[in-house]
Amino acid sequence: MSEIKRLHNNGRLCEAAIFNNVAYLAGQVPETTLEQNAYAQTAEVLSLVDKLLAEVGSDKSKILNAQIFLADMADYAQMNQAWDEWVDRNHAPARATVEAKLAVAEWKVEIVITAAV
Amino acid sequence: MSEIKRLHNNGRLCEAAIFNNVAYLAGQVPETTLEQNAYAQTAEVLSLVDKLLAEVGSDKSKILNAQIFLADMADYAQMNQAWDEWVDRNHAPARATVEAKLAVAEWKVEIVITAAV
Amino acid sequence: MSEIKRLHNNGRLCEAAIFNNVAYLAGQVPETTLEQNAYAQTAEVLSLVDKLLAEVGSDKSKILNAQIFLADMADYAQMNQAWDEWVDRNHAPARATVEAKLAVAEWKVEIVITAAV
Repeated sequence: MSEIKRLHNNGRLCEAAIFNNVAYLAGQVPETTLEQNAYAQTAEVLSLVDKLLAEVGSDKSKILNAQIFLADMADYAQMNQAWDEWVDRNHAPARATVEAKLAVAEWKVEIVITAAV
Repeated sequence: MSEIKRLHNNGRLCEAAIFNNVAYLAGQVPETTLEQNAYAQTAEVLSLVDKLLAEVGSDKSKILNAQIFLADMADYAQMNQAWDEWVDRNHAPARATVEAKLAVAEWKVEIVITAAV
Repeated sequence: MSEIKRLHNNGRLCEAAIFNNVAYLAGQVPETTLEQNAYAQTAEVLSLVDKLLAEVGSDKSKILNAQIFLADMADYAQMNQAWDEWVDRNHAPARATVEAKLAVAEWKVEIVITAAV
């Protein structure tokens, strides 16, 4: 059996767990764009995804699945604008988007990624 | 490493990504039953799942996990009625069902499937 | 190809599906703590996770991903208290927590686990 690798484990959760060539990322949320709109927050979240994928030896062309949670479905178009500017159009992942209240009131979007490594 | 295969990539998302003998399906939603109840919508969504699984060389007996989102938890019984008529009783998958507002007001159900191939 | 194993299949869903050394658990919910607070319910749910992981030949040090649904995000601190007392701090999984209404009014928390076996 392959081993499990974990990145940025803070004792409560890790930002990425890798097993059998698949990386499971923690839900990524805005850090520096809390005061900004869903477009800016999504763009930041996707840049955090890029950074984590690079650390695990993957990249956005290898994403298998994206689960997107929006605090307000009215932000669907703004989220998609940032997504469409970012996604690798030739290797777009499976995706699902639903509305859900998030852990911090300012967060408008949280994205959970599974990717091949 | 095995390669990633993608089906029905529209540049934003694909309907199925397959890696290491596991298929990750995009969230499946109603297409032709928008005006109908949750029973009819779930039955249609599950028929879309069947179709996608067939395309990736799998079928409902090989589903590993189903994440079900209901726009209104009051539709839980109707969803289950369609599910119970459809599921392979001898090979039922792990499942979780929660309520979440979906991207289109008429959608009463969205189902995210992971399956072995 | 490896085979799929299923545990506690009740004809609608199974509590765990195992494939390629990965276990996909059904959403775990409270059974005996319905009248208690989110701390007690989370502790019970995590004990059910432990039990299932033991049955599939895994344990909490091998969890890859946890998706936590809280019926009320106001219970975030109570959930985390139970989680922090339980989690293997040296092998914490990727995690995401969102608010979602659950299938039974008394349920305050539901947890979906993916683990290496």
